[in-house]
Amino acid sequence: MRLQVPGYELLSQAGTLSYSFSGTGVNVASALARFGHTGYLVSTLPANAVGDAAAAYLRKLGIAQAFINRGGQYVGLYFLENGFGARPSRVTYSNRQESSFNTAPENSYDFADIANNIDVVHFCGITLAMNDSVRRHMKSFAQAVKAKGGTVVFDCNYRPFHWGEGSYAKAKPFYEEMLQLADIVMMNEKDALFVLGMESTKETRQEQLMELIPAVAQKYNISVIAGTHRSINSDNTHALQGYIYKDADFTFSRTLTFSVYDRIGAGDAYTSGIMHGVLEQYSATRTVEFASTAAMLAHTIVGDTPMSSENEILKAMTESLGDVER
Amino acid sequence: MRLQVPGYELLSQAGTLSYSFSGTGVNVASALARFGHTGYLVSTLPANAVGDAAAAYLRKLGIAQAFINRGGQYVGLYFLENGFGARPSRVTYSNRQESSFNTAPENSYDFADIANNIDVVHFCGITLAMNDSVRRHMKSFAQAVKAKGGTVVFDCNYRPFHWGEGSYAKAKPFYEEMLQLADIVMMNEKDALFVLGMESTKETRQEQLMELIPAVAQKYNISVIAGTHRSINSDNTHALQGYIYKDADFTFSRTLTFSVYDRIGAGDAYTSGIMHGVLEQYSATRTVEFASTAAMLAHTIVGDTPMSSENEILKAMTESLGDVER
Amino acid sequence: MRLQVPGYELLSQAGTLSYSFSGTGVNVASALARFGHTGYLVSTLPANAVGDAAAAYLRKLGIAQAFINRGGQYVGLYFLENGFGARPSRVTYSNRQESSFNTAPENSYDFADIANNIDVVHFCGITLAMNDSVRRHMKSFAQAVKAKGGTVVFDCNYRPFHWGEGSYAKAKPFYEEMLQLADIVMMNEKDALFVLGMESTKETRQEQLMELIPAVAQKYNISVIAGTHRSINSDNTHALQGYIYKDADFTFSRTLTFSVYDRIGAGDAYTSGIMHGVLEQYSATRTVEFASTAAMLAHTIVGDTPMSSENEILKAMTESLGDVER
Amino acid sequence: MRLQVPGYELLSQAGTLSYSFSGTGVNVASALARFGHTGYLVSTLPANAVGDAAAAYLRKLGIAQAFINRGGQYVGLYFLENGFGARPSRVTYSNRQESSFNTAPENSYDFADIANNIDVVHFCGITLAMNDSVRRHMKSFAQAVKAKGGTVVFDCNYRPFHWGEGSYAKAKPFYEEMLQLADIVMMNEKDALFVLGMESTKETRQEQLMELIPAVAQKYNISVIAGTHRSINSDNTHALQGYIYKDADFTFSRTLTFSVYDRIGAGDAYTSGIMHGVLEQYSATRTVEFASTAAMLAHTIVGDTPMSSENEILKAMTESLGDVER
Amino acid sequence: MRLQVPGYELLSQAGTLSYSFSGTGVNVASALARFGHTGYLVSTLPANAVGDAAAAYLRKLGIAQAFINRGGQYVGLYFLENGFGARPSRVTYSNRQESSFNTAPENSYDFADIANNIDVVHFCGITLAMNDSVRRHMKSFAQAVKAKGGTVVFDCNYRPFHWGEGSYAKAKPFYEEMLQLADIVMMNEKDALFVLGMESTKETRQEQLMELIPAVAQKYNISVIAGTHRSINSDNTHALQGYIYKDADFTFSRTLTFSVYDRIGAGDAYTSGIMHGVLEQYSATRTVEFASTAAMLAHTIVGDTPMSSENEILKAMTESLGDVER
Amino acid sequence: MRLQVPGYELLSQAGTLSYSFSGTGVNVASALARFGHTGYLVSTLPANAVGDAAAAYLRKLGIAQAFINRGGQYVGLYFLENGFGARPSRVTYSNRQESSFNTAPENSYDFADIANNIDVVHFCGITLAMNDSVRRHMKSFAQAVKAKGGTVVFDCNYRPFHWGEGSYAKAKPFYEEMLQLADIVMMNEKDALFVLGMESTKETRQEQLMELIPAVAQKYNISVIAGTHRSINSDNTHALQGYIYKDADFTFSRTLTFSVYDRIGAGDAYTSGIMHGVLEQYSATRTVEFASTAAMLAHTIVGDTPMSSENEILKAMTESLGDVER
Repeated sequence: MRLQVPGYELLSQAGTLSYSFSGTGVNVASALARFGHTGYLVSTLPANAVGDAAAAYLRKLGIAQAFINRGGQYVGLYFLENGFGARPSRVTYSNRQESSFNTAPENSYDFADIANNIDVVHFCGITLAMNDSVRRHMKSFAQAVKAKGGTVVFDCNYRPFHWGEGSYAKAKPFYEEMLQLADIVMMNEKDALFVLGMESTKETRQEQLMELIPAVAQKYNISVIAGTHRSINSDNTHALQGYIYKDADFTFSRTLTFSVYDRIGAGDAYTSGIMHGVLEQYSATRTVEFASTAAMLAHTIVGDTPMSSENEILKAMTESLGDVER
Repeated sequence: MRLQVPGYELLSQAGTLSYSFSGTGVNVASALARFGHTGYLVSTLPANAVGDAAAAYLRKLGIAQAFINRGGQYVGLYFLENGFGARPSRVTYSNRQESSFNTAPENSYDFADIANNIDVVHFCGITLAMNDSVRRHMKSFAQAVKAKGGTVVFDCNYRPFHWGEGSYAKAKPFYEEMLQLADIVMMNEKDALFVLGMESTKETRQEQLMELIPAVAQKYNISVIAGTHRSINSDNTHALQGYIYKDADFTFSRTLTFSVYDRIGAGDAYTSGIMHGVLEQYSATRTVEFASTAAMLAHTIVGDTPMSSENEILKAMTESLGDVER
Repeated sequence: MRLQVPGYELLSQAGTLSYSFSGTGVNVASALARFGHTGYLVSTLPANAVGDAAAAYLRKLGIAQAFINRGGQYVGLYFLENGFGARPSRVTYSNRQESSFNTAPENSYDFADIANNIDVVHFCGITLAMNDSVRRHMKSFAQAVKAKGGTVVFDCNYRPFHWGEGSYAKAKPFYEEMLQLADIVMMNEKDALFVLGMESTKETRQEQLMELIPAVAQKYNISVIAGTHRSINSDNTHALQGYIYKDADFTFSRTLTFSVYDRIGAGDAYTSGIMHGVLEQYSATRTVEFASTAAMLAHTIVGDTPMSSENEILKAMTESLGDVER
Repeated sequence: MRLQVPGYELLSQAGTLSYSFSGTGVNVASALARFGHTGYLVSTLPANAVGDAAAAYLRKLGIAQAFINRGGQYVGLYFLENGFGARPSRVTYSNRQESSFNTAPENSYDFADIANNIDVVHFCGITLAMNDSVRRHMKSFAQAVKAKGGTVVFDCNYRPFHWGEGSYAKAKPFYEEMLQLADIVMMNEKDALFVLGMESTKETRQEQLMELIPAVAQKYNISVIAGTHRSINSDNTHALQGYIYKDADFTFSRTLTFSVYDRIGAGDAYTSGIMHGVLEQYSATRTVEFASTAAMLAHTIVGDTPMSSENEILKAMTESLGDVER
Repeated sequence: MRLQVPGYELLSQAGTLSYSFSGTGVNVASALARFGHTGYLVSTLPANAVGDAAAAYLRKLGIAQAFINRGGQYVGLYFLENGFGARPSRVTYSNRQESSFNTAPENSYDFADIANNIDVVHFCGITLAMNDSVRRHMKSFAQAVKAKGGTVVFDCNYRPFHWGEGSYAKAKPFYEEMLQLADIVMMNEKDALFVLGMESTKETRQEQLMELIPAVAQKYNISVIAGTHRSINSDNTHALQGYIYKDADFTFSRTLTFSVYDRIGAGDAYTSGIMHGVLEQYSATRTVEFASTAAMLAHTIVGDTPMSSENEILKAMTESLGDVER
Repeated sequence: MRLQVPGYELLSQAGTLSYSFSGTGVNVASALARFGHTGYLVSTLPANAVGDAAAAYLRKLGIAQAFINRGGQYVGLYFLENGFGARPSRVTYSNRQESSFNTAPENSYDFADIANNIDVVHFCGITLAMNDSVRRHMKSFAQAVKAKGGTVVFDCNYRPFHWGEGSYAKAKPFYEEMLQLADIVMMNEKDALFVLGMESTKETRQEQLMELIPAVAQKYNISVIAGTHRSINSDNTHALQGYIYKDADFTFSRTLTFSVYDRIGAGDAYTSGIMHGVLEQYSATRTVEFASTAAMLAHTIVGDTPMSSENEILKAMTESLGDVER
C-alpha cells in the first residue's frame, strides 16, 4: 500500500494522503495484462477492509486473482513524499515483517498447480529480502515452474533498507540461488560488483557492465540479462539507456531524456517491456527500445504501476514530442 | 463542456473531474470582453441544470447573453487527460451531433437583429464541421453581418476528428464559402495546402506560407490573414511565432519560447489579439506581438479560455521574466 | 457514467464532479458477484479513454468482462445534484440514443454462447425504453436463455423521461413481451395500473397490490413477483417494505425505517437480494428480509452500486443500530 | 467575502477554505434576478485580483454591474466554521471599516442616475452599522429613489457585533431615519422592543408582534412590514413561520419544519420572496407562503445566496417531500 | 495514526485518506491543555518523516513534548471508514506490536524525573493490552507517581480486539494491578462483570452499576470512579448519561441526546472532564455535567481529539441549541 | 495569514484557498527552531478563531509562544496566486494597519523580560513599514536586547507596497535607526543605493556591492552583512549566489541553479542560515554555503516557512541531485 502526500507538501505539513496498491509483482503483472497477457499475482491479503480495498484495486489494474489468498493481519505499506528539484522524494517504510504476505504459512500456495497455469514467473530482490519463509516460498515456486518447463524471471533489485546496513554478504547466497534458477535476469554492473562481490578492472559503468554481465550469464547459466543506466541531469530531466544481453551479444537502446512525474515503478515497466519482447520474440533491438520507452512513459504516469498499452508505447517509440491528441 | 481529469492521472485512474464551459466562440468573446469590448455568444443551451451551469459560467467569463437561446437536450462535451512530458494530453469527445446547438431549428436566431448590435462576428472551422443546418446558420449570419457593413472573421481551425478521416474534399466547398464572406482569416500554409488543395513548390513552412497566403488573400478577397507557427522543444517548452498579412505585407512577431501549463484555447487567444489589434488600429507589428504574447500567456492559464487583461499582455510584451509581484 | 456534484452544491455552483460507472445491469451483476456468484455484463463500451475507464471501474466492482464488446462512440451519462432535506436530488440526463450500447449492431452478441455460460439473466425497463434495436437484442437474449433452461428476470422500472410524456401505450406491448418471457419480475401495483393498464377497485396501495399482482402472475405465467413500497417521512428518513409473491402467496418484510445517503441504485440492491434468495433457495421470509435489508444498506453506500457482502446484510438483519465496529 | 472551512473542521484544524462573495445586497439582488428582475448592486470593489474575483462571482450570480465602482483597498471578509448539532456555527469577522465600500468617498455614486434606472431599492441594517459616510450614502440614495417615485425596502437586521455592545441607543436614530423613508420593512417584534425601544404588555412573541408591528407601521408610515419567527428543535431541524402586515392586516404562513444545511442568507431569501410577491402583486397569502418557502429552500443551498428559481419555489410550496427527480 | 476515508465511501471505493495522530493519551493530554493545564505525553516516536509528522501534530494540539523519545520504526495506525445510519463505522487496525512505543526498551523513560514534573498521570486499558514490556513501563510509572504523591488515573477501556478473543482471564490480573495503584478510575458495570469477573443479582444496567461500583471502589481502595451509559436511538442520535461515584455517593448527569459526527475519542473527552473537575475541585454535579457536556461536544468535532475550551463547554452546559454565532 | 489559490488558477477562477500563517518572523523563528535553537515570536494575535488557528499553526512549526499576546481584532493577510512560466505569481495584500499586531498598545510587551530570555533578536524592514507605534516597539526591543548584551539582526527587506510609492525618503531615517542598533544586517547594494541613498561609480551589481557594503558596515558599525543576488533564467530556473561580509572580508557562495516551487520565504531561509552559521561559529565559507543551500531548499518547500533540518541542508550542500530516497 502506497500512501502518498498529494502535491509537494511534507508529511508534517499535509493532512491527506492518496493511496494505491502496488509492488514490483503488481506492476509487472498489470503491465503484462495491459499488453494482452493474463497476469496473476501470487500473494496473501488480509481478510478485512484493507484487504478488500487491495483486491478491488488489483482487479481494476486487470490482475487475475485466482492465486491470491486471504489471511493474516495487514499489508506492508510505505509513505511517499514527492520531491521537487533539489529536494529528493522520500520513502518511509512501515514495518512489513508481520504482513499477511510475510507471515503466510508454508504450504499456503499450491505451486505445482499454479505452475500448470502459467508460462513465466517473475521474482524480485525486494521479496528476497523479507525472511526465510518467504525465501523458501520463492525457491519452491521457481523450482515448480522450472519443472513444468516455464520461464523464471528474476529482478535483482537490491534495496539496502530491507537487508540492513552492510549486508551484501547476507544477501549473496540467496541471490545466487535465484540466479541459478533464473532464465531472464534484470540487473546491471552494480549488482555484480556489490551483491555478487565480483571485481572489475574497468572504470566506466559501461565498460564494467560489458565486462561483468557476460561473466554472470555464463556462471549462472542465464539466457537473457537486461537492465538500465540512469543519470539525472541538472535540469531534473532523467536520461535512461537500456541494454539487453542475449545470445552472447549486447544491444543498447537509444538514450532517452525526459521529464519525470513519478519515478517509482519505472524499473518494473522496463522489466515488463523486456518480458513482453522476449515472449513475443521481438528482435533484441525492438525489445530494448520497447522496454526503454515503456520505462520512459512510466515516469509520466501517476502511481507505481505502468498504465501504457502496447500501442501507446510503440507510438512513443517512433514519434517526436506531440501536441494535444484531439 | 470540458471535463478534465485533475493533475496527471488518466481517466481510468482518477475519480473526479473539473468542469468548465468553453469553445472557440466562448474563448474569443470572453477575451475580447476582457479587452473592453462587449462580447456576445450566439448559441443555444438546454433548459436544464447543465444549461444553467453553462449560462452561469459564461456570465462569469463576462459574456453577454442576449443572443443565447434555451432549448434542445444537451451540450457537447469532451474529456481531457493532461499529458506530462513524453506523454501527450488526450482529448476524448463525446458525440455532439444532437447537442442543443447542433439541433437548433432554422430561424432560431434573428441574425438581422443580431447584426444590428455588433461590429464584428467570429466563426470557426470546428463549427463548420458540424452539420448542414449549422452551416446554413453560419452562412446566413455572415451574410447578415456583411449586409450591415460589419466585419467577418473566420478561423480555419480544421479538426480531422470532426470531419472524419480523409475528408478534405468534403470540407473544401464549405471553407471556400466562408472565405469568400470573410474579412479577417486565421490560417497558415497547412490549411491552404490540405483544405484548399493548393500546391507549393517550396520546402520550408515559412517559404510555403509566404507563397500561399498572398494567393489566398487575393483569390478570396481577404483583407487580413494571420496565424502562427508552433514547434515543441525537447525540454517540453513551446516556441511560437505569429504572422499577419495585411496590405500585401507580412509582419512576423518575435519567436516566443515558454513553458506550457494548458495548451488548449491558446490559438483563440491569438485570434482575439489579432481582432483587438485590428479593431483598435494597432500597427501590424504591435498587433502581431500583442496577439503572440496573448497566446503565450494563455498557455500559462488554467482552462481553455484566456484570462489576461490588455494591461497584463502589454506588460508581458515588454518585461523579462519576473519575480513574484508583491 | 454518473457525474455527481460533490456535497450539496448545484451544477451551477460547483467546479468538480466525481464520476463512476453504473446502471441497473452493473449494480445487479456487481451485487451478485459480492454474494459469491459470477456476474457478467453484456454490453458495448467505446474503444477510447472513457471506455477504458468504464472497463477498469467494472473490473473493480468484480464484474466479469467476457461479454463486453468495444465499439461505438460514447457511454450514456447523467449528472446528479444531491438534494438536501426539502430540496430533492436532481438527475439531468445527457442523450444516450447514440451511445455504444444503443447503437451496437444486430449480431453484436452471440446470445447462444452467452446463454451457455449463465444460469440467470436480468433485464430492466430502462433498457427497454431505448430503441427498437436494443429491444430486439433483449428479446433474442431472453429467448436464448429460455431455450437453454435458464431463468429470466425482468425489472419493470418504468422511467417516464426515457419513454417520453404520456407514453404508457407505447411501452405496453414491449413490457408484455418481456413479461411473457420472464420467470422473476420486479414490479408493484403502479406498473400494473399504469404500464399494463389494469384496473383496481381498491384504494390503498397495499390492497391494490394484493389484487393486481396475482392477476399479473397468472396472465403472464410468472413464478415470482417482488417489489417494494417506499414512503418518505417528514424527518427525511425513508420507510421501505418489501414483498414477494411466490407459489400464490404474499410475504412481506418488516417495514424498515432509515436515513438515506445515496438513494440511487437501492432498488437494484433489492432485486439482487431477491435473485440471491431465489438462487440460494432461501425461504420467502428470509428472501424478502434479505432483499429489504440489502436495499436499506444500499441507501447508506456512496454511488449507485451496492457494496455490502452477504455477511454484512445478514448481520444488519439481526442486529440493532451499532456503535463503531472496532 | 465568505471564507468557509469545508466540512465540520475548525479553523485551527483545517488547511483549506472555500470562498464566495455575498452579503445581504448580493443575496437579494441575485435572488430577484433569478425571479426574472434585473438586479443591480451599488457598491465599490478594489481594483485588484480580489476585486476581479468578486466581480466575476457577482456576474455568475446574475447581478448587473453597471453601478459597481472600482477603488479602495479590500473587501470585508468573514470566516465561517460550520457547526454540527450541539455545536453552533461560528462566524469570525475581519475588520471592514477600511474596506472599499466603507471608504468610498462622498459622491462616489450618482444616485439620481441610478434612481432613474430602478423601481425598488433595498437597504439593510448591517450596512447602517458601518460608519457615518455609509449612512449618508444610504440616506441620499433612499431620498433619490423616493424622489423618482420608487420603492424603498429596509431590512432592520440588527447585528450587535457591528454596533458594539449595548448600542441600541446609538443605532435608534439611524433606524428611525430609514424607517421614515421606507415603504417595505423587514423586522419582527424584537426590533421594535430593542432597537426602537418600544414596550409591550404581552408575553408571547406572537402577541408582542401583533401589538407592536401595527404601531410601527403607523408611526413611520410604512405600507408593508414582514418578517419571520424561527425556532430550533431538539433534532436540529428549524421551524419557520413568516408573516406579512399589509393593509392593516396580518397574514401568516404555515409553519415550515425542515433540515438545515446552510443557514446564512436564508433571511435574505425571505426578503426577496416578499419583494417579489409585492412587485408581482401576489395576494398576501401567496406572498408570505412564497417567501417562507424561498427561505426554507435557501437553508438547503450551499452558500449565503439563494439559488432557487420561481418555479422551484412554487413547486416546493405545493408538493410533499420528494424522491429523486429523474 | 488515524487514516480516515473522507465522507462515507468505503476503503475499497475511495482513493484518499485524511490523517491525524491521536490515541487516548493524546486526547486526554490535549483536552487538559485546552483547559489550561500543561499536558505531557510520555511516548516514543520513530525518527523519520512519520515521527516528525506526529510530533508536529502533537505540538499543534498543544501537547508538551519534553518526555517524548525518538526511536524504533513506526507508529501504530488504524483505518476508519465512516458509517452512515444503519451502516456502522468500521475500524481496521494495522499491527502495532512492533511500533516504536511497544518496542521501547526498558529504561527508556526516567519515570522518577517525570513524576517530579507532574501532578497526575493517566493510563488506559488499551495500552495495558499491548505487551509485557509496556505493562512493566506502566506499573513503574504509576509507582513512581504514587511515590511522589501524585494522582493515578486509570481508564479501563477494555478492547477485545487487542486482548484476543475470550481473554478476560488474561486481562484480569493486569487490570487488578492497575486498579490497586489508581486513585481515579473510569469504568462502568460491564468492566466489573466481564474483566473483573464480579457478579450481580440485578438486571438493569443502572442497578448493576449501583451494586458493583461501590464494591470495586472498596476492594481496590479507589477515591473516584466515573463513567457513562450510552444508548443509540433509532434516529441515529445518541443518548449519554455520565455518573461519578465519590465519597461513597453516586451523582448522575442529565441524559444528553445529540447528533453524532465523530464518535471516536468522545470517551476521552469525558475522562478529561472528570479529571478537570477533580483537579479544579468542582462539585460532583458540576464535574459530571461538565464531563458529559465535554463528551457531547466531542461527538461534534472532527477527529479523535476533543477541541472544546472550558468556556465552550460551560456555555453548552447552560444554553439551548443555538443559531449561528455571529 | 497566507491565503493561496491551489494549483495555477486565478482568484477569479478558483473556489478554494489553502491557508497558513507565516511572516518573516515566523519563518526565521521556525527555521532556527528546526536547527535546534528555541525560537520565540513576539507578537499579538486576536482572541478569536483565527487567532486560535494561528497559534496552533505556530505551535506546529515549533515556535515557542511565551511572548505572544492575545488581543485586537484580526491578523494581516494576503492572497497568493501562483504564477506559471511567463506569468508571474501575484500577491494581493489586504489592509493590515488595524491588525492585532499593528494596533498593539504601547507597553504590550515587557521587552526587558524578553531580552533576558533570548540571545539574539531578528527584525525586518516589512515590520518597520507598518506605523509609528510598531516602529517604537522595534526600537525599544532592540535597545533592550543591546542592553542585555544580545545580538540584533536586521533584514532590510524594503517593500515598496507597504511604504507607498516613492517613499525612500520616508523610510531612510527609520532604516538608519535600525542599522545603528544592528549587529548583523541582511541587505545588498540595492538597499544601499535606494533606501540609504548612497551612490556608486560602478556598473555591475557585484562591483556596486563590493563598493557599498563595506561603507555601510563602517558607517553604522555593523559586524556582519550578508545577502544574495538572484537572477531568473529563461527556463524559469533561478540562480542564487549568497555573500557574507565579515571582518572586512567578502565571502561568496557557489552560484546555485535550481527549479522553484514556492519562492516566498526563501530569503528568510537564507537569513536563518546566516544566523545559525554565526551562532554556531561556522567559518564564513560554511556559513554562506549553508545559508544559500537553505535558501535553495526553501524554494522547493510548500509555503513561506522553511522546513529543512540542519542535516538535510548539510546533505544537500555536498550531494548531487538525488534519486528517490528509499
